[in-house]
Amino acid sequence: METQGLKGWFISLEGGEGTGKSTQIAVLAEALSAQGLSVVVTREPGGSPKADLIRSLILDDRMVGLNSMAELMLYEASRAQHIAETIRPALESGKIVLCDRFADSSIVYQGGARGLGLKLVDEANRIATQGLEPDLTLFFDLDPLVGLERIGSRGVIDHMERERLEFHTMVYEGYKRLAQENLVRIKSIDASKTREEISEDILKIVLKKIKD
Amino acid sequence: METQGLKGWFISLEGGEGTGKSTQIAVLAEALSAQGLSVVVTREPGGSPKADLIRSLILDDRMVGLNSMAELMLYEASRAQHIAETIRPALESGKIVLCDRFADSSIVYQGGARGLGLKLVDEANRIATQGLEPDLTLFFDLDPLVGLERIGSRGVIDHMERERLEFHTMVYEGYKRLAQENLVRIKSIDASKTREEISEDILKIVLKKIKD
Repeated sequence: METQGLKGWFISLEGGEGTGKSTQIAVLAEALSAQGLSVVVTREPGGSPKADLIRSLILDDRMVGLNSMAELMLYEASRAQHIAETIRPALESGKIVLCDRFADSSIVYQGGARGLGLKLVDEANRIATQGLEPDLTLFFDLDPLVGLERIGSRGVIDHMERERLEFHTMVYEGYKRLAQENLVRIKSIDASKTREEISEDILKIVLKKIKD
Repeated sequence: METQGLKGWFISLEGGEGTGKSTQIAVLAEALSAQGLSVVVTREPGGSPKADLIRSLILDDRMVGLNSMAELMLYEASRAQHIAETIRPALESGKIVLCDRFADSSIVYQGGARGLGLKLVDEANRIATQGLEPDLTLFFDLDPLVGLERIGSRGVIDHMERERLEFHTMVYEGYKRLAQENLVRIKSIDASKTREEISEDILKIVLKKIKD
């Protein structure tokens, strides 16, 4: 059952905004705990005391307009600290780590949508994580227009909305490509289904993985 | 005269503590300005408004004990922002940028002394700088014991002092190796000479470079 020399399981959840990741991570954690499994729920950026200080800087108003490369490096700093303080210790003690966003988010957002390039961000990820990868990644696959509506788009497509939709579409297409290139690690979840159906689908995939 | 497609000259100063970099950078800036050249003096980490916010986080007491990889990535974030906000615009407008520490510091400190590995840090540097390198690097070559004395070592070598000396020696040897591997870019300065002699040596090297 061991992967990468660690006893636990590292599972990341990825997808655009409005795809329901946060709701489902809580449901999944409860379902796994109910089976007697030890679960840690965490998220990026942040996820540990010092990583949260880096998160606060990323979100600081004074950092608006930050250079994209500097932004990527702050995410990588947060990620390295998150791994050292939270993820690796949990995996070493055999826990299941459920992480809302991980390195794939940097590839899709900074690499694709912000234009740094997928390969460059992939390299930065490999350095910062020192090769630690999720055993399983759940990609919440949802039409970006539906996702935008869920997070309160007004439906009317004006100039601002069109830009937002273009950005979300780039993010969506980035994830689709990543999923196609990583068929073993990344499993697509049909996030247009009902909450209950999605929860069932996810639990099935996770249990299959950890009980293989 | 153009290097890397930029009109200006990018000169970094490197070396351990107590080697006199800060004193000499000010003298050099004045000497160059006196010749009618346009000079920007800056330093790492920080060196621009947003990079200074990252610097503050690096130096924050709550970050003591930060993972070495996370620390490296914060330095890279600061570096990327420093390049975008300060260094690149100055070079594009034909100025001489004098920078107290740059990417070599990460190789020597995080890569060597902190143990992340020189190659890994070199890769991180190339990503964060997107290949921007100093045209000339002045390495302040000084016996680490002398450097330590200058910054107030008590001379008596107790346990704490021995550890400090070991760290400074690692840093010194890291720089020596880098200088040997980059004979064209890195010029060694004999920092055991008098202030005046060092200033003369430096000015000669810099003028030879920019007037070639």
